[in-house]
Amino acid sequence: MTYQAIIFDAYGTLFDVYSVNALAEKLFPGKGSLLAATWREKQVEYTRLRTMSGMYKPFWEVTQDSLVFCCKKLGLALDLNAQHALMSEYAKLPSFPENLEVLGKLKDQGLKLAILSNANPEMLEVIVKAAGMDAFFSQLLSADSVRKYKTAPETYQLGTELFGLAAKNILFVSSNCWDVCGASWFGYQTFWVNRGKAPLEELGVTPNGNGDSLAALLAFVSKANDPA
Amino acid sequence: MTYQAIIFDAYGTLFDVYSVNALAEKLFPGKGSLLAATWREKQVEYTRLRTMSGMYKPFWEVTQDSLVFCCKKLGLALDLNAQHALMSEYAKLPSFPENLEVLGKLKDQGLKLAILSNANPEMLEVIVKAAGMDAFFSQLLSADSVRKYKTAPETYQLGTELFGLAAKNILFVSSNCWDVCGASWFGYQTFWVNRGKAPLEELGVTPNGNGDSLAALLAFVSKANDPA
Repeated sequence: MTYQAIIFDAYGTLFDVYSVNALAEKLFPGKGSLLAATWREKQVEYTRLRTMSGMYKPFWEVTQDSLVFCCKKLGLALDLNAQHALMSEYAKLPSFPENLEVLGKLKDQGLKLAILSNANPEMLEVIVKAAGMDAFFSQLLSADSVRKYKTAPETYQLGTELFGLAAKNILFVSSNCWDVCGASWFGYQTFWVNRGKAPLEELGVTPNGNGDSLAALLAFVSKANDPA
Repeated sequence: MTYQAIIFDAYGTLFDVYSVNALAEKLFPGKGSLLAATWREKQVEYTRLRTMSGMYKPFWEVTQDSLVFCCKKLGLALDLNAQHALMSEYAKLPSFPENLEVLGKLKDQGLKLAILSNANPEMLEVIVKAAGMDAFFSQLLSADSVRKYKTAPETYQLGTELFGLAAKNILFVSSNCWDVCGASWFGYQTFWVNRGKAPLEELGVTPNGNGDSLAALLAFVSKANDPA
């Protein structure tokens, strides 16, 4: 068996962040999509700056800080109601429609599954439970336990420690190409869920597999693990 | 004397990256500004990912990688001539008009000056010499010598080591607010050259001073170091 376990990123990979765009557009007509995109970029930027500088702060707070900054930058008046509404949306993102069936079939093949996310444990537990996915995962691993965000090796190491497996026997799945690169650098096999048909980052990494949904992941794993 | 030395960031702080926009616009009419902005963001992103993952690569190469990615993303056909032209532009950025006078007056006040940049030494030497600024600086410090980019503490530490001073006796000057935050976290006093009137990053840091040019820096330092 090529892969003995699979580790999933959460946001964008299992959970659809599109609903944030929709709410942002409703709150700030004509500027919502820009706000949502800028917010996501700034959120990731802050995780990296804080990790490089050893200034960890939980993901929920980083998410809030980045929302406040982006509204200031775009000249949008963010009152407490709007802030609360946008943050709440982040806490209840829908999962992609194919998830449950794919996760079930992967488990049927004897694979161990986990999530490894930048989100703090409280955020992860709520969202995974709301999507009815809690039974599928051995554990929800959070960057919070090492106080460093991806792509710090200490964060990726949570996955090898959990399963007691070498990274090369674990498939790491993410919709974020930079996350795929970080995981590959760490030593994982990787699958890129490239839902938006983005070009590959120029970081010298080629994922082991890629496709436009978790259905493509299932096909990839089934083929790789087929003894025939 | 409050400040005994001043350390400057290079790109955007001492050197004007605007000329890259102009050339990009000439090569890709209607998309040049977007390319230049995206290129700069991707360049910084790659420095951070490579630093967090311990996958250092010199700044010149990171700059080239990010250019290639951005052209792919924006659907722009980047032939070798265009690539060479854009990269060459980066190597000969003009300095801001007030620089020479301000640097001279700071030196006259007995302050030691240095540059601390993500750029590799070859890039720095060429650009500083072309601007006629080489006589002002004790040294051109590069992230290359520790193979980690800002905001890694190891990079900022090059400045305290050079001058043999505590960080609190050194003023760190940058036009990049994230760089100001990283330097403040490290322990430097900081001045933000906020040329674009950007909002302050939501990172819990307030620079000791800020202004829209190096002339504002001179006024700030002169006042802080005035014994009267």
